Amino acid sequence: MSASTKALPKRSENYSEWYNDLVKRADLAENSAVRGCMVIKPYGYSIWEKMQAALDRMFKDTGHTNAYFPLFVPKGFLEKEEGHAEGFAKECAVVTHYRLKADPNNKGALIADPESRLEEELIVRPTSEAVIWNTYRNWVQSYRDLPILVNQWANVVRWEMRTRLFLRTTEFLWQEGHTAHASAEEAIAETKQMLEVYAAFAEEYMALPAIKGVKTANERFAGAEETFCIEAMMQDGKALQAGTSHFLGQNFAKAFDVQFSTKDNQLEYVWGTSWGVSTRLMGALIMAHSDDNGLVLPPKLAPIQVVIVPIYKNAEQLAVVSEKIVALQRALQARGISVKFDNRDGLTPGYKFADWEFRGVPVRLALGERDLHNGTIEVSRRDKERGEEGAKTVQPLESVADHLESLLTEIQHNIYQKALRFRDSNIRTVDSYDEFKTMMEHKGGFALAHWDGTTETELKIKEETKATIRCIPLDAPQEDGVCIYSGKPSTRRVLFAVAY
Amino acid sequence: MSASTKALPKRSENYSEWYNDLVKRADLAENSAVRGCMVIKPYGYSIWEKMQAALDRMFKDTGHTNAYFPLFVPKGFLEKEEGHAEGFAKECAVVTHYRLKADPNNKGALIADPESRLEEELIVRPTSEAVIWNTYRNWVQSYRDLPILVNQWANVVRWEMRTRLFLRTTEFLWQEGHTAHASAEEAIAETKQMLEVYAAFAEEYMALPAIKGVKTANERFAGAEETFCIEAMMQDGKALQAGTSHFLGQNFAKAFDVQFSTKDNQLEYVWGTSWGVSTRLMGALIMAHSDDNGLVLPPKLAPIQVVIVPIYKNAEQLAVVSEKIVALQRALQARGISVKFDNRDGLTPGYKFADWEFRGVPVRLALGERDLHNGTIEVSRRDKERGEEGAKTVQPLESVADHLESLLTEIQHNIYQKALRFRDSNIRTVDSYDEFKTMMEHKGGFALAHWDGTTETELKIKEETKATIRCIPLDAPQEDGVCIYSGKPSTRRVLFAVAY
Repeated sequence: MSASTKALPKRSENYSEWYNDLVKRADLAENSAVRGCMVIKPYGYSIWEKMQAALDRMFKDTGHTNAYFPLFVPKGFLEKEEGHAEGFAKECAVVTHYRLKADPNNKGALIADPESRLEEELIVRPTSEAVIWNTYRNWVQSYRDLPILVNQWANVVRWEMRTRLFLRTTEFLWQEGHTAHASAEEAIAETKQMLEVYAAFAEEYMALPAIKGVKTANERFAGAEETFCIEAMMQDGKALQAGTSHFLGQNFAKAFDVQFSTKDNQLEYVWGTSWGVSTRLMGALIMAHSDDNGLVLPPKLAPIQVVIVPIYKNAEQLAVVSEKIVALQRALQARGISVKFDNRDGLTPGYKFADWEFRGVPVRLALGERDLHNGTIEVSRRDKERGEEGAKTVQPLESVADHLESLLTEIQHNIYQKALRFRDSNIRTVDSYDEFKTMMEHKGGFALAHWDGTTETELKIKEETKATIRCIPLDAPQEDGVCIYSGKPSTRRVLFAVAY
Repeated sequence: MSASTKALPKRSENYSEWYNDLVKRADLAENSAVRGCMVIKPYGYSIWEKMQAALDRMFKDTGHTNAYFPLFVPKGFLEKEEGHAEGFAKECAVVTHYRLKADPNNKGALIADPESRLEEELIVRPTSEAVIWNTYRNWVQSYRDLPILVNQWANVVRWEMRTRLFLRTTEFLWQEGHTAHASAEEAIAETKQMLEVYAAFAEEYMALPAIKGVKTANERFAGAEETFCIEAMMQDGKALQAGTSHFLGQNFAKAFDVQFSTKDNQLEYVWGTSWGVSTRLMGALIMAHSDDNGLVLPPKLAPIQVVIVPIYKNAEQLAVVSEKIVALQRALQARGISVKFDNRDGLTPGYKFADWEFRGVPVRLALGERDLHNGTIEVSRRDKERGEEGAKTVQPLESVADHLESLLTEIQHNIYQKALRFRDSNIRTVDSYDEFKTMMEHKGGFALAHWDGTTETELKIKEETKATIRCIPLDAPQEDGVCIYSGKPSTRRVLFAVAY
């Protein structure tokens, strides 16, 4: 474990390198031998498992069940929904053969057996609308079969040219909800409900304030009528789309001929939604809260919430201290707190402190003989800067379990408040294109600006500043103004930012 | 929901059709549009989730953590371990291109873009030893980095020509543990420990008695030094391999150059294990316990453990009965029992009874106004035959929660005992090849017979009878005898059966 042996690059100096280094050295993920595909390491994966567990509960509480659909999409399926084909049938992994054989010209080598060529190529799913709607056709006859409220946890592949761990990888893990409804109203309500679920998850678990909005036509999901999203701000002022929820209208039902008979015995096409979040959220979590000393994890997603480091000079002292620590560990575990007792031998307390700080463990306890004598324990919290008031306190040992229980709640809250303050101080109302350009070039952040509603203007602004319209915020008030770019009239501000 | 409208084929008449029909009509799984790939439907998936949760807990309790490795294996990796290449680099999905483009000769159609041809083909993982050991090379320097105790939940693809839902599908879901150790002893202990975990899971959760054993060289995992397995008996007397645990020796460490420095500063190759179970277990669960009326699920894996059907003549009666049912539902849920209140309108109680019977819900309650008057409730258990003593009883309403809690335990136990009795009455000691052939041709079951230890004999017997050596049982006593086929000497009996 060499996490703490070398300083991280500073965020202020090289944010991108800081992120890459942190992900690798905190044992979250690494690049694999397969271009663009990552290995999610045990520590990183255990955070993802916590995310999955919380989301899965929220999905089930809103009436959804999980199912599993095939990894492969027949090529022809992707041709069926025109918009979808445009958007997805491009950078895909294409399976053309189903057998390898020994290369007759090269001993020990293997080649794809030419005789095993598939009649129709199979695409490794970039998303599953096509496969799932083809299945729903057989599941739906009448209104009694609706709604279908299904979610899938799966891997998907989109052949990306430039990849970054968690943020953009060729293969990634995600969940994709696919629901089918008897009316547009019900499908829209579902779309919005899942947007709320994502926003609640981001805020309550990830401690990440989310702006809810709707995408412009240009940024919409390929095949959707309307795409809702949550957008979050990273510490470099860039935006990260943290979840999307799509109202699909009847597009996929028409492409795959999914009809149902209504109560009045009419045949109608089914209305659909889909919604998803991915391992990208790991990137958001890391970039939103961590600092130059390493990861900062909100307690609700931290695999280890409390670490206890023994302070001792000899085996005898260690034995005495360990007894107390094990008892405390049990008491904390009984309260549902996950605790690690770091009794690794041959490492100094200072090394251990830096190591757990680097890994973002929310609370660190240190206990030595002197503490035992005083009936106290040292409590350090990861969410405060080193040396900041309250970062390190001494607590009575006998009541420390109570203290920690409320401290973890406080830390969760504090991390959220910090992110919220940061975000709010980096959202600006911008009324001139010059100001807009300067902002995007230098400080970054989110700009609330008027826009004339055309894709043309949107693309021009993107070309000139790299900023895109992240969303039209759901809570944006009516307000007359003129487009910062074209000067044409506008009725409300939209949210611009450079995005991941 | 038409599960109960048509009778199932009888097991005694057409076991295979009975199985296929049951899987589809109980909404467990269905074939997809992609050859050999299945859709796992919500009800089936929720059983798989219960299996996953129990196994995951058992893996973590034995010190393992989860991680995630890429879906794709570079072709060259499969060439590295000779035995592994022989066994796995055959029926695989081969990715040759990474982009689709519009077909210039066929409007609306897509073709694999010839310019996107990969320099080296990627194989969709049939198993992950190659990718994982290539990763471990970078994770291991010294003995301090060992052991690595990692598990992965993932999908894998093996191009099967003849597929059957759950039992043999081109894509399936599984877990694969991959561990790395500093000594052969430690790796062997891990291999055996995981075999015990699988056997315990099969017995405690699946109510499936498992025979633990070791595979012959011929049936060994490609790349392993030794393969341990658990074998279970299905109701048609065939064997199903329900889990395998492999001691890999240093084979993969050598193929991928994974070395570590010992405490004495020597460089040595790492010792490995791998172990896995898959959605095949769903097939085993279904085939082991279900009957001609549908599924029979052990309570520990049943998504719904108790269903309550209201008996009423009018809305008024329904209201009165519902109030009691909702209260009972809450009381049961508070005890951790999953309960469904079937208040679907327009369906008769008889229809509902048959429906839940078909889906294998362990306990069915029926409550009507007369019951309320008597302070009683009707309790039916799925594990007993219709009309069998104790299949249906009337219980005092006020104490029914207590009753159900112990009843579920009893049902779990009873299902196991039934399977155990069936298995034990279908294992026979066989001493002549004629008897062996007759047994395999007619009644089936497991034969304990002497074998001369050669692959030649093993293959001849397979050719002539379809029976294979399922394992050399770990508890097989030393016993002198002669091979049923060759007459050569043998020192212990091995387990033969026709297998899925």
